[in-house]
Amino acid sequence: MARYEIYVTYKQGIFDPPGATAERALKNLGYEGVEEVKIGKFIRMSADATEASVAEMCDKLLANPVIEDYRIEIVEGD
Amino acid sequence: MARYEIYVTYKQGIFDPPGATAERALKNLGYEGVEEVKIGKFIRMSADATEASVAEMCDKLLANPVIEDYRIEIVEGD
Repeated sequence: MARYEIYVTYKQGIFDPPGATAERALKNLGYEGVEEVKIGKFIRMSADATEASVAEMCDKLLANPVIEDYRIEIVEGD
Repeated sequence: MARYEIYVTYKQGIFDPPGATAERALKNLGYEGVEEVKIGKFIRMSADATEASVAEMCDKLLANPVIEDYRIEIVEGD
């Protein structure tokens, strides 16, 4: 059993609506120093699976490879 | 200007519907080894703001402190 952390982010140049909304909202709240906000997914998984298999899960279901990048980190091995 | 990475996760014991859905879908796709999937947010922010100020932004807007925890990391200082 391994624990994985997966970071899913929009690819460079892809518009990020939740991030843009948060950015505007923070500025409206008075946080003028906010420059850019990007919101992605932080997935934690416990699985009896190899990293290659987790990458496959990302491609098939957890991320949209057309518009998103992902990075997989093994937090804890067997 | 600093760059922050913020990890927003459901608090212990709070039901995570997207995570539960992904978990079931992965099992249905044949990934029997998947034990648990938790889906949170991965926020990247560039801001001219202190870490205390970013924590305030989390409490007010980026996270829901009633059901979510967050962790702030400074990626790059001034």
